[in-house]
Amino acid sequence: MIRVAVVGAQGRMGSSVVEAVKAADDMVLSASVGSTGELSDIRTDSTDVAVEFTVPSASLGNVLTLIGQGVDLVVGTTGWTQEKLDQVRQALATAPRKDQAVCIAPNFAISAVLADYFASKAAEYFTSAEVIELHHPDKVDAPSGTAIHTAQAIGQARRRARLASMPDGTQGEAASRGQLIDGVPVHAVRLQGLNAHEEILLGNTGEQLTIRADSFDRSSFMPGVLLAVRTIAAGGHEGLTVGLDQFLDL
Amino acid sequence: MIRVAVVGAQGRMGSSVVEAVKAADDMVLSASVGSTGELSDIRTDSTDVAVEFTVPSASLGNVLTLIGQGVDLVVGTTGWTQEKLDQVRQALATAPRKDQAVCIAPNFAISAVLADYFASKAAEYFTSAEVIELHHPDKVDAPSGTAIHTAQAIGQARRRARLASMPDGTQGEAASRGQLIDGVPVHAVRLQGLNAHEEILLGNTGEQLTIRADSFDRSSFMPGVLLAVRTIAAGGHEGLTVGLDQFLDL
Amino acid sequence: MIRVAVVGAQGRMGSSVVEAVKAADDMVLSASVGSTGELSDIRTDSTDVAVEFTVPSASLGNVLTLIGQGVDLVVGTTGWTQEKLDQVRQALATAPRKDQAVCIAPNFAISAVLADYFASKAAEYFTSAEVIELHHPDKVDAPSGTAIHTAQAIGQARRRARLASMPDGTQGEAASRGQLIDGVPVHAVRLQGLNAHEEILLGNTGEQLTIRADSFDRSSFMPGVLLAVRTIAAGGHEGLTVGLDQFLDL
Amino acid sequence: MIRVAVVGAQGRMGSSVVEAVKAADDMVLSASVGSTGELSDIRTDSTDVAVEFTVPSASLGNVLTLIGQGVDLVVGTTGWTQEKLDQVRQALATAPRKDQAVCIAPNFAISAVLADYFASKAAEYFTSAEVIELHHPDKVDAPSGTAIHTAQAIGQARRRARLASMPDGTQGEAASRGQLIDGVPVHAVRLQGLNAHEEILLGNTGEQLTIRADSFDRSSFMPGVLLAVRTIAAGGHEGLTVGLDQFLDL
Repeated sequence: MIRVAVVGAQGRMGSSVVEAVKAADDMVLSASVGSTGELSDIRTDSTDVAVEFTVPSASLGNVLTLIGQGVDLVVGTTGWTQEKLDQVRQALATAPRKDQAVCIAPNFAISAVLADYFASKAAEYFTSAEVIELHHPDKVDAPSGTAIHTAQAIGQARRRARLASMPDGTQGEAASRGQLIDGVPVHAVRLQGLNAHEEILLGNTGEQLTIRADSFDRSSFMPGVLLAVRTIAAGGHEGLTVGLDQFLDL
Repeated sequence: MIRVAVVGAQGRMGSSVVEAVKAADDMVLSASVGSTGELSDIRTDSTDVAVEFTVPSASLGNVLTLIGQGVDLVVGTTGWTQEKLDQVRQALATAPRKDQAVCIAPNFAISAVLADYFASKAAEYFTSAEVIELHHPDKVDAPSGTAIHTAQAIGQARRRARLASMPDGTQGEAASRGQLIDGVPVHAVRLQGLNAHEEILLGNTGEQLTIRADSFDRSSFMPGVLLAVRTIAAGGHEGLTVGLDQFLDL
Repeated sequence: MIRVAVVGAQGRMGSSVVEAVKAADDMVLSASVGSTGELSDIRTDSTDVAVEFTVPSASLGNVLTLIGQGVDLVVGTTGWTQEKLDQVRQALATAPRKDQAVCIAPNFAISAVLADYFASKAAEYFTSAEVIELHHPDKVDAPSGTAIHTAQAIGQARRRARLASMPDGTQGEAASRGQLIDGVPVHAVRLQGLNAHEEILLGNTGEQLTIRADSFDRSSFMPGVLLAVRTIAAGGHEGLTVGLDQFLDL
Repeated sequence: MIRVAVVGAQGRMGSSVVEAVKAADDMVLSASVGSTGELSDIRTDSTDVAVEFTVPSASLGNVLTLIGQGVDLVVGTTGWTQEKLDQVRQALATAPRKDQAVCIAPNFAISAVLADYFASKAAEYFTSAEVIELHHPDKVDAPSGTAIHTAQAIGQARRRARLASMPDGTQGEAASRGQLIDGVPVHAVRLQGLNAHEEILLGNTGEQLTIRADSFDRSSFMPGVLLAVRTIAAGGHEGLTVGLDQFLDL
């Protein structure tokens, strides 16, 4: 049994993680504390992996504390800058255990992670590529961070393959043509009833490849969180891993 | 057998109409002339309905001439203004036959006509609505005329039902959010391999209705053209009809 | 304010109705009782419309009792036979109030109701039609009642229009071709993560019309339940109405 | 310039290849012969790669003859058995040139090849998987060979990952649930207006990944054929390669 502690257990994501851990056959909940709770009891004698889902202002502190206590970590809190990630790497370099492991991922939805990865692999073989992301209307940013990441990955793949720029005969201004990110048009839909969805359209003469990821609710993150916990618990991933795709066999 | 004459028979659409008429069990081709060809032989003794697919600069003249010869018409040429339509109405008022009929339609793809109509009927029951149109990259205008028409129909339905404006928490400028037409966001995709496609997304709490029309090539217009020819030939539609939806049993 | 009583208020659907009524600006909760609770207090002096979401074994009794107390009803419980509906009609014929109204609907998801209706209207204009329904894997019946209803509506429309049977060159047995219902192939997908979804595909030479309804969770029924309550409260629908489509302006 | 000969140049696919070669900036047509035409002039002094699109009864003979003449080959004819492939391998073992290369592929649509490959990579991470293939109504087999291949690849990936069988609560017989291939339900749609399409649905709690390949007409095979020709001409692929995916950088 993998012993899992949850930090941020009262939050929306954290409480879902608590339920998912309890429901998993191969895991047991070793501890659950609030976002800024007392971490001193989360130690290697009772916990194998801690899952941290709090807020950007608290997360770095929590992660550094737990690294100092020798604990392996899966972190789903957002807001990580290159600078913060470097602090984590430094902490790991002087951590109590040699093989300590931390996985920080911006998105634990396996479907979204795979869609992003597949788009980056397919992009070089298609004349055209566009991204449509669709979210609930409460979302404040547009386009989504995931869609930006996908468009950039497509743009990079196209440059690497020295593809010509995409054909587009549109004349004059056309606000309907979306936002160009790294040369890739990105469209954002905000629709009551939706949660988080992304569709990547790739076109050649006579053919189209469509890759779509639907996240219907936050339970969609749990399979990815458990996969990260199991991968870390299985060992062999010491140091900092950024992005769940690193843990998938692709 | 319905005797059909085709004007603009050498054009891309016209030549498809010629083939479609020849292939129809209940029709026979009575004449086929070029865009600016000799229309004097297209008369009621040999022709029941003339189909006109030419160019905007020639179409009004052709239509007025044929009305003057007593011929019923199905017209697929684009570029009709309210003024031009009025000229057709006046010509019909003094036409040789009392029950003469002309149908002018901007789009003969039955799927597109129905999608547009269904969207206008459904719109009042949904909190959110957006339109995505997708076309081949050679298209010069964005968004498409059909998408503009659909968005306007949705906007009108929402006003009639006194719906509040759509929820959208997006902060700051967001080019990815598309072009607002009558309050409805419209997004345009230009993708190699596509022809002409439109998708209407309607959302409520917990549910979504999606209506999509795909026109894979210009053969998609032929069922609609033949339907218009048959409807006119069956009688009872004297005067000017604008839009194929008028001939559908909806 | 419309005064709404909920019968079956502890059930999954009923409790959602209680929440939806409380959240609606134009409604107030007048009473909430269990599936087999005491209905004697639900009377016209305090309640305008009662919503009944219980179980098939209790629903007819509840409905007859409330009709006898003069109360208007919206009923979402399933399992209604023609015989049971007749008993409701008889009860209404001798009801305390002349203009008493009852609406019984098998599906309150507006998107599903509209998809079904649009498919029935569009069917006569297409050579081919197939239905794909997609549900969570716990569903015990396949295909869904909604998909069967949609296929039958398409089949009827095709017969009315005297369409030839659909082209299908498949040779030999082919289990993959789905279940024929009234001549229309119906396919059922059972996929972890889904809730209740239906897609209707209609095809002509060169074109396709797709109509899709997604119900992401049971909150998707609430807009339809509230619409039925408002329509009944507005008056003019005395007698028994079966199906939410009767209350939509189509 | 790559010098390309086309065998089967009068066929539907072959004539499209002739046009595609002529349109490519980096290729020149060196010869074009019919399905059972004279191959003696297709030799290495004038041709770098021969493309063979004929019929199963002629293809093996053509391939063996051209291997004997030292010519590299891209073969799109279907109907290859393991036995026939072995004959090609033997012929290559004693071919005039050491580095001679032959690529035989059942499907040159890049979108279809990628969809199949991505499905096989993603399958181990999802609780449920189903395949829907959609084709024109003239197709005689159902499900399609591509869908069978995809289902088998998914089945293999699931066994490798020791996944439990998919959840499915359907009770009784249900013809609508499709055909089980290697444990994966496969559904076949035959719709007027369609060409060749495949959709792979993968589901987890709260999320879905959809991968869809659309081949709108046979021009969809040309980018894949040209890619194979270029890859072979670039060298380094001696021997027999089966499947276009081997030439993609995945």
